[in-house]
Amino acid sequence: MTAPLLRRTQMSDAVILGLKERFGARVSTAAAVREQHGKDESYHAPQRPDAVVFARSTDDVVDIVKLCAAHQTPVIPFGTGTSLEGHVAALEGGVCVDLSAMNRVLRVSAADLDCTVEAGVTRKQLNTHLRDTGLFFPIDPGADASLGGMAATRASGTNAVRYGTMRENVLALTVVLADGRVLRTARRARKSAAGYDLTRLFIGSEGTLGVITEVTLRLYGIPEAIMAAVCPFPSVEAAVDTVVATIQAGVPIARIELLDAKQMEAVNKYAKLDHAVAPTLFFEFHGTTRGVEEQVAQVKAFAAEQGGNDFHWAATAEERSKLWQARHDAYYAALALRPGAKGWATDVCVPISRLAECIAETRRDVDQSFVTAVLVGHVGDGNFHLIFVLDPAKPEEFAEASRINDRMVARAIAMDGTCTGEHGIGYGKMDFLIAEHGEGVAVMRSLKHALDPDNIMNPGKIVRM
Amino acid sequence: MTAPLLRRTQMSDAVILGLKERFGARVSTAAAVREQHGKDESYHAPQRPDAVVFARSTDDVVDIVKLCAAHQTPVIPFGTGTSLEGHVAALEGGVCVDLSAMNRVLRVSAADLDCTVEAGVTRKQLNTHLRDTGLFFPIDPGADASLGGMAATRASGTNAVRYGTMRENVLALTVVLADGRVLRTARRARKSAAGYDLTRLFIGSEGTLGVITEVTLRLYGIPEAIMAAVCPFPSVEAAVDTVVATIQAGVPIARIELLDAKQMEAVNKYAKLDHAVAPTLFFEFHGTTRGVEEQVAQVKAFAAEQGGNDFHWAATAEERSKLWQARHDAYYAALALRPGAKGWATDVCVPISRLAECIAETRRDVDQSFVTAVLVGHVGDGNFHLIFVLDPAKPEEFAEASRINDRMVARAIAMDGTCTGEHGIGYGKMDFLIAEHGEGVAVMRSLKHALDPDNIMNPGKIVRM
Repeated sequence: MTAPLLRRTQMSDAVILGLKERFGARVSTAAAVREQHGKDESYHAPQRPDAVVFARSTDDVVDIVKLCAAHQTPVIPFGTGTSLEGHVAALEGGVCVDLSAMNRVLRVSAADLDCTVEAGVTRKQLNTHLRDTGLFFPIDPGADASLGGMAATRASGTNAVRYGTMRENVLALTVVLADGRVLRTARRARKSAAGYDLTRLFIGSEGTLGVITEVTLRLYGIPEAIMAAVCPFPSVEAAVDTVVATIQAGVPIARIELLDAKQMEAVNKYAKLDHAVAPTLFFEFHGTTRGVEEQVAQVKAFAAEQGGNDFHWAATAEERSKLWQARHDAYYAALALRPGAKGWATDVCVPISRLAECIAETRRDVDQSFVTAVLVGHVGDGNFHLIFVLDPAKPEEFAEASRINDRMVARAIAMDGTCTGEHGIGYGKMDFLIAEHGEGVAVMRSLKHALDPDNIMNPGKIVRM
Repeated sequence: MTAPLLRRTQMSDAVILGLKERFGARVSTAAAVREQHGKDESYHAPQRPDAVVFARSTDDVVDIVKLCAAHQTPVIPFGTGTSLEGHVAALEGGVCVDLSAMNRVLRVSAADLDCTVEAGVTRKQLNTHLRDTGLFFPIDPGADASLGGMAATRASGTNAVRYGTMRENVLALTVVLADGRVLRTARRARKSAAGYDLTRLFIGSEGTLGVITEVTLRLYGIPEAIMAAVCPFPSVEAAVDTVVATIQAGVPIARIELLDAKQMEAVNKYAKLDHAVAPTLFFEFHGTTRGVEEQVAQVKAFAAEQGGNDFHWAATAEERSKLWQARHDAYYAALALRPGAKGWATDVCVPISRLAECIAETRRDVDQSFVTAVLVGHVGDGNFHLIFVLDPAKPEEFAEASRINDRMVARAIAMDGTCTGEHGIGYGKMDFLIAEHGEGVAVMRSLKHALDPDNIMNPGKIVRM
C-alpha cells in the first residue's frame, strides 16, 4: 500500500523560516519526528509532513495557520496519532500541528455537568482529573485518544449505546479556521436553536474545515451502582439476538459488546485470561442499586432464552477495570495472534434489525477465505469491526481483506447502514463515502470549499477537491 | 410592528403561469390563502407570499424549487404556521410551499425504534399512528407542529430534559436543495462517522438551506410506568432550586416544568382548574415501576427541602393528559388574561447553575415594569419563556417588552447561554444571533452562500445576505 502522491510543490522555505522565527525549538524538521507524525495506527501508508510544530495555545495555532495560508501550505492537526483511516498522513506535505502539549483542563463545572479542555487532553487524563468530583466523561474509543481528535473524528466506543457519541456530548468547540479566524461554535446552554449547528459541522470534519483547539464536554455523575459481566453464547447469532432483545426492550444498558470466539482466544492469550473460547458478550450496567438489579434480571432472561447462562461478574472495581481492559486491548490482542502482523480494523454500522444478518454474511465471507480475522463490536449500536490480521509481506492477504471489506461495506450500505460507525473517512474511505452519500458528497464539497477555498486544511481527506 | 420591506421585484408572471400549468388548482393566489400563509403565531408582522402551492410529494417540491430558481424567486416552506419568530413571513415575496398534504407515515420499524414520515405529518398524528405499536415520539413543542417544521426549527419542548431535542432525535432528512437536487442526509444507522454531519446542518436551518420533505425519527418504547404530578412552591427560587438539585443528581426525569403564580392563575381560569396560585412545578416520571418509585422519592425529598410538599398526582392516563394539556395551553391561557391581547413568547436558555439568577433578575425587570408577563419554562434544560401579554393598540407596551427582552437576552448570553433555546431565529432574532455568535454568523453566511448562492430559500431569515 502506498499513499497517493499528491504533493503539489515543495513547501516554501519561507514557511519553515517563519515558523522557526516564531516558534524556535518548537518547530521540528527532523526525519524521525516527521515520520512519527505522518502515520496513525492503520494499515494505510503514512506520509510525512514537511515540518511539525508543537502548539501550546489557540494563538499559536492561529499563527501557524495564517503563515500556512499565506503560502498555500497544508495544515494537518495531530493529537495522539491513533486514527484508523490515515487521517494524519500529510498527503500533500505541509505543516503538522501537534496539539499534545495543549493539555490543560480549563474548567470543570460540577453544577452544570460540563467542562472545557484544550484539544490535547486525552480521555483518560480527563477522567483522572475528574476523579474527586463524582463525575466522569463516558466516551471511550479503545485508544487513549485526545478529546480534540475524538471530536474531529466523531468518535464513540463502548459506552455510546447509553451515553451517545461525541456528536451528543460536545457542547461547543473552539476552532481555528483556514484563514486564521477563531470561531467559538456555541455557548454552554444544553440546547439552542440559534442558527446553523456549527458545533456538529466541525464534529467529524477530521481537520478538513479547521483545527479544533478547545472542547466543551458534557459530563455525567458516576452511577450509584455499576456491575459488569461476561457471558459466552453458543453462537454469534445467539449473542446478537440477546443484544437486539435488550435494545428493543429499552434496557438502559451502559455497555454491551460482542467478541467472537477467535477474538476471545486472542484476548485470553494476550491478557493471560481463561474466558471460554466462544462468542461472548461483555456487559456493563449503570444506575441505582435497584435499577441495576432490574436491568440485570431483564438481560439475564434475554440471554437465557439464547442459551447464555454462564455470567461471570466482576465483583470489584479492579476486576471490572481488568475486564474492560481486556475488551479495549482486543485490537492489540488480535495483532498478537501473528507476530509481526499488521491490523486492519474495519467499521460498519447497520440498523439493529439487520445486525445479525450482516454479521452472519460477513463471517461467511471470512470463513470461506484464507485470511485471519476476528470480530468485535459495539453491537448495541449496530456497529461492529472485523479486524484483519495480515502479513505485511503478503500483498495477496491485503487484496483479499480489501475484497471482503468491499463486500461488507456494500452490504451495510444496502441495509441502510453506514461505511463507518466511528473511525471516520480519512483518506481510506473516500470512495465508500461516495457510495453511501451520493449527492451528499457534492454538498460536503460545497461546504469544504466555502470554509477552506484553498484546500489547505488536511487536504485529501473526506472529499476530493 | 411592520415587516422590513425587502421585496426585490414583483414576482415574474412566468412563475405563476408555470406553477398553474404544473399544479392546476393546487396553486392559489387568493388573498385569504396568501394572508394565512404569511403569518405565524408570533407578534412579528406577517408578509404574504405571492402564491401558495400545496405540495404532495418530494417531486412536487423539486418542480417548484426549479421553477423558482430559474426566476430567482424566493421559496418559503410552510408546515402548520406555528413558528414564533416570523419564520414563514415572505419578506421578499415569492412562493410558499405548503407541505401539510405531505402527511403520510411512510414506514415504522418497531425493531429499530425508528420511522420515516413526510414533512407535513404532525407530532400528534404520528403518535396516534403509533398507538398500537407500544412506541411513541417524545418531542412536543406546545403546538401540534409538523415534524418537518420541528426539524427545521430544532424544536424541543417539555420532554427534552430526558429525550433531547430534534437535534438528537432525527436520524436522517430528505431535503430539496436550492437548485432542485434531492439530498438524503444520512442512512438509518444509529451512529456514523461518514463525513460532515449533513443531518445536523439542516436541523435548525429554518428553510434557508433547502426544503425538508421527509424526516427519519428515533422512537421510544412507552415506559412501563408513567407518573405525573404538580406541586406548588413558596417561591420561584425554591422551585428552581428543586429543579437544579434533580438535574445535578442525575435523576432521569422525563419532564420538569415551571409555571409562575401569574401563569397558574391564567391556567386555572382558562382550563377551569383549581391549582394553588403559586410558583408550581409540573413533573413526569418514566421508567419501570420500581424505577419511577425511586425517582419520585428522590424528587420529593429535594422538593421538601425547598418547602414543596403538596404533590398532587394524576392517577389515571386521562388525568395525566388533562394535567399536561393545561401546561401546553399556557400560552393561550396567558393570552386569555387580556381579551384581544397579543402574545410575545421570549425564549432564553442558560447553564443550569445560572438559571435561578437569570429568572430572578428577569422577574425583577418585569415587577418594576407596567407590562403584563407570565413565566413558564423547560427548566430542566435551563430554558424558560417570559410571555408578554400586550395590548396591540399600545405601542408603548411593545417597546417596553422589547426593552425587557433585550436585557434578558443580553443577560442569558453573558451567562454563557443562548438567545433562543427552541424557537429559532426567524427574522425576529437576527441581531441577537450576532450578539451571541459573533464570528460564527460570518461562517453561517458562508454556508448559506455555498448552498443557496442566489438567496432564494426563505430569504431574510437567520442571516442577512
